[in-house]
Formats: sequence, C-alpha cells, structure tokens
Amino acid sequence: MKKTILSISVAISCAYASEGLLLQEAKQNFGPLPKTFPSETNTLTQAKIKLGKMLFHEKRVSIDGTTSCAKCHPFSYYGADNLEKSRGNFGKLNPRNAPTVLNAAGQISQHWRGDRKDVEEQARKALLGKGSFGAPSNEWVEKKLQSIEQYTVLFKKAFPNDAKPISVANYAKAIGAWERMLSTPSRFDEFLEGRSNALTQEEKAGLKTFIKTGCASCHSGALLGGTMNQKFGMVAPYWEYTKSKKIDEGRYNVTKKEGDKYVFKVPQLRNIAMTSPYFHDGSVTSLKEAVKIMAKVQLGVDLSQEETQSIYLFLESLTGKLSQDIVTVPLLPETN
Amino acid sequence: MKKTILSISVAISCAYASEGLLLQEAKQNFGPLPKTFPSETNTLTQAKIKLGKMLFHEKRVSIDGTTSCAKCHPFSYYGADNLEKSRGNFGKLNPRNAPTVLNAAGQISQHWRGDRKDVEEQARKALLGKGSFGAPSNEWVEKKLQSIEQYTVLFKKAFPNDAKPISVANYAKAIGAWERMLSTPSRFDEFLEGRSNALTQEEKAGLKTFIKTGCASCHSGALLGGTMNQKFGMVAPYWEYTKSKKIDEGRYNVTKKEGDKYVFKVPQLRNIAMTSPYFHDGSVTSLKEAVKIMAKVQLGVDLSQEETQSIYLFLESLTGKLSQDIVTVPLLPETN
Repeated sequence: MKKTILSISVAISCAYASEGLLLQEAKQNFGPLPKTFPSETNTLTQAKIKLGKMLFHEKRVSIDGTTSCAKCHPFSYYGADNLEKSRGNFGKLNPRNAPTVLNAAGQISQHWRGDRKDVEEQARKALLGKGSFGAPSNEWVEKKLQSIEQYTVLFKKAFPNDAKPISVANYAKAIGAWERMLSTPSRFDEFLEGRSNALTQEEKAGLKTFIKTGCASCHSGALLGGTMNQKFGMVAPYWEYTKSKKIDEGRYNVTKKEGDKYVFKVPQLRNIAMTSPYFHDGSVTSLKEAVKIMAKVQLGVDLSQEETQSIYLFLESLTGKLSQDIVTVPLLPETN
Repeated sequence: MKKTILSISVAISCAYASEGLLLQEAKQNFGPLPKTFPSETNTLTQAKIKLGKMLFHEKRVSIDGTTSCAKCHPFSYYGADNLEKSRGNFGKLNPRNAPTVLNAAGQISQHWRGDRKDVEEQARKALLGKGSFGAPSNEWVEKKLQSIEQYTVLFKKAFPNDAKPISVANYAKAIGAWERMLSTPSRFDEFLEGRSNALTQEEKAGLKTFIKTGCASCHSGALLGGTMNQKFGMVAPYWEYTKSKKIDEGRYNVTKKEGDKYVFKVPQLRNIAMTSPYFHDGSVTSLKEAVKIMAKVQLGVDLSQEETQSIYLFLESLTGKLSQDIVTVPLLPETN
C-alpha cells in the first residue's frame, strides 16, 4: 500500500517537474502575444484605428474597384485567402501566397522576402502594386478618397494636425494602426502565463516534440516566427519536397546577395491551422504534410506519423480568438 | 390675441391633418419591413441560417477560389458591390449590376430580369454561372464541401432528415435561409408605424414629392419596389438619358415576348443611397441623377432641382440598420 502511494506521488512529482520544465522551455523560446503591436512612428489613436478599419475594406481605391486589403486578407479565413497565390485587380495572380494579416504587425518585416519594413509600408506600396490594387498613382488614390465626402471628415479626425489630412501616407498609417490591433491570443498564451491545463496533454506533448525536433530554433518569439530570415531548404532543396511549380530565389532577388538565395522570412505560426495552403508559393495544402517537409528540409529529420500528428495538434492550439471588433465589418461611406 | 390663438391652432390642426394624410397615403403605398422573409418551402431553422451565413462567405466552392456570395454582396457596401457590373471568377465581367442582397428575399423574383424565382434558386444557379462561381458541376461543388470536415457536421445539423445532407440543393436552401434574415428596417418603418417625428420635415416633404410625382406607383410595398416588372423607358428610351454603353433588352431575352422588351424588375429602394451605381447596367453613379432620369423616362416629368433634392433626402431615410449578426463575419472551417 505504502509503496503504491509512494510511486503515485513520485509519478505526480515527475509529471509536475516535467510540466514545469516544459513551461520553462516554452517561456525560453516563446512569449505571450501582446495585446497590440505599437509603433514609434504611428501612434494608435481610436480615430486612426476606426478609419484604418474602414480603409482596410475599401475597394474604391483599386483600379478595378474590387480590390481592398480584405480581398486577400478576409477575416472569415483568419486574415489569409486560402489560395496558393492571391489574385489582385482584374484577377491578376500575385507572385506569392498571402500570409495572414492577423498578428502580422508583430514581425520584423512584411512579405515573404521581408521587403516591406512594416505594415504601413506594405499598405502604402500595395496601392500601386500591379498585382494588387493597381492604382495608377498616389494622386489618383487621393482623388478617389477625396471624392467620398465622409472620408474628408474621418481623415481630419484621424490626422487633426495635418494640413492635408487625405494622403496616401495617412491612408497607410490608418491601415497600419488598424493592423496593429489584430492580436489573436489563444490557449497557448494562457499556458505561457502559467495555466497548465489551458493545453491538453496531447497539445503539451506536441509542444515538447516541436521544441525537441528543433522547430523552435526559428519559429520562436510571441508569434512563433516572424523574427528572422532563413534559407528555405537548409538540408535539402525545398522544391524537391514541396509541390512548387517553379523555384523562387527569395530574398536574393531583392538584395542580389548570394547568401540570400532561397532565403525567406520565417513565417509566424499563429493561426497556422486556419491559413492553408502553406509556404511562400502555397504549394502544400495539408498542415501535416507541411510539418513533415519542414522537418526534412530544414532539420534533416524524418518525422514519424505520430510525431507529425503531435506537432499538428500543438499547432492547432495556436488558433486564436478574433475579437468582435475584428469580425465586425465596417459600413463604408456612400459614393458621392 | 384670440385670433392669433385661433390661427395657430388652425395651423397646427392643418399640419396634423396633413401629417395624418401623408401617413395614410404612405400606408396605402408602402408597408413596414417584415423582420424576416419566410418561405413555404424553406423553413428557417437556426442551424440552417448559421450554415447559410458561412456558405454565403465560402469561396472554396468557386473555380478560382476567390468567389463567394459575399464577393458581389459585401455587407460593408450594404450587400452590393459598388461596381457598374460585378466581377466573378477570374475577374469575369457579369452582364448586369449586382443588386443588394439586403431585403432581396422579399421581392417577387431575383435578378434584374426576374429570371430566378427566389433567393434559393439564385444561390443554386450562381454556382454554375460562368461569370459568377464558374463551378464545373454540382458534383464538383459537393465534393469540395465534403472535403471540409466541419461541413459534414454542419450540413447534418441543418438537414437532419436528409440521407445525403451535403448537396447543392441544401447549399442553396441554407444560403436562402440566411438571406431571408437580411431585413434592415429604417426610420421610415418607424414613421409607418405612427412615430411621425422618425422622419425630418425635409424627409416627409420628400416622401410627399415621391408619391405626388408618381414614383410610388411602381416603387411600392415594404421594399418600395421588387413587386412587379416594368418597362424601363415608358415615356422615352432609357439609353438616351442614362450613360448605358449598350441597349439591354431585359426580360425579352428571357421570354422572347415582344411586350417584354426593355422590361426589368422594378428594383427595391431600401438602402438605395448606399448602393450606387444605379440601374441594371450601373450606368449612373449619382442617386440624384438617377432620380431625375427615372422621373423623365418613366413618368415624363422634369423634376426641378428642389424636387430632386427632396426625393433624395427621403430616399436616404431608407438606409436601414444592419443587425450585429449581419455585419459579423463567420469564421470558416479549416481546409482538410
């Protein structure tokens, strides 16, 4: 009898110790998601956020009148678009997969190749992007916005000290402000804050596998990614394992540095289960398959089916809560 | 003194009498908006409505993966898309302007030419429409839906007595059920229910002008339209006044009856101020201009600027309230 009690309590202590260790390891690698993603150059005011939310859904600034930020980042699909590659104005194919806009502001940079320094620059440059909004010029966009009476009022409220409140720079700042609010904490954050049973035993086992396998060496921080650039295919060429139709040289095409060949920003993993398909070219639909490929080409590890499933279950715990504000669409002003 | 009191009370009585008369006339022509638009063949259950709302936003059933009902009927734009003519799969141009889906279920039929008997038929046929979803077959759509695990559960809940819950017919019924909930009452309904000051004096004057001019002879009922088909251009060919790029023969192309030449369904006027551009071809952007043209080509009336403005102000009072449920986007299931 005594022996049984002893072994039970040893088992419990071990479980506690191992749980404590897991939390400690998790805290070393990751961090809880901040409530917002502030910026030194773009103060988050209510008026700016409100306007930004409207502009995020505004199609009238695109050449075909169908393209808004929400077109490629609909919140129904967790801020991504479920396509291999996005389709912008007149259905034009974009060169890469649209990553989710949720929590995106918390990354070191924007776009797969990190060639947009922040969400504001991304929003601003997308306007003139041939495959995105396709607007002919900044002046054209400003004229469009000026033609909608209510925006005159709203831009003035959001940028009260500007001599010319309606500008593409302010359009980008407003959208940036809105995007800096798109934080979607999940049960994983509760776990990181010490509530051990916020994750199931299976999810905790998955977290352990995730760290043990080496995934966390790149997928780290509050977003489990978005903190660095890395070569896709450290161990083996990615295109031999993905279903990529062509080879994308990644950051090399931006910097022309040999060391940047096949380098991409490490994508964040927040809401990853909801934002299929995967990789810069959306070439893989199944998250489990994506996990297996990553382990193989980045770490040289052949994951077993059980390990893959285990990591998959952990990744599902990163599906966050979208606030009522995020899922409420704004009503846009009348065309004058 | 007595005389003054007398004349004030006479004036008040007259005002009351005239207000009463206006309400009476309004009630003869229009009716308050129902809370839902029920159907004898499609019972509105919570499970069906919930599923229908999701399917309304579902792009995975389109050939290009970008087209959902919400693409041409986004609620940010009051259920219409602010385009002359909608763009469906791969940016294909549709033959006519997308009318709002708000309150649409309350009409005698769907589409400008009335060639869809109800919202369910519209939803079902849009799937295979070359310019809309472009799906190759009903079976293809059903396979897509079956591939998304969560839909198996949701269709079963919505259609518990069906041997095969996932079907295009049930897809259409679910979307129809959701669309039958899209009622957007406005201050005009409060006025019709007897709260006289729900409308401003200017709006009431506009209502009077609207009725007096003859608009209400076609734009009648709870939706101020959607109750009948009529020739567009009773007095003068419409294309001489609109900015139409080509002549659309309307219902004639559906029925081949000579009497149906240039006949269209009379569009509803609920939320009309928010759903520019106007007419079957979206050829006119300004609501005031559309009002002037209608008076001219339908009634042979040259409206003065004041009368046009007056009617415009009344029409703005038809902008309704979108419930929180309408403006909340549903989160869609993971791709499996």
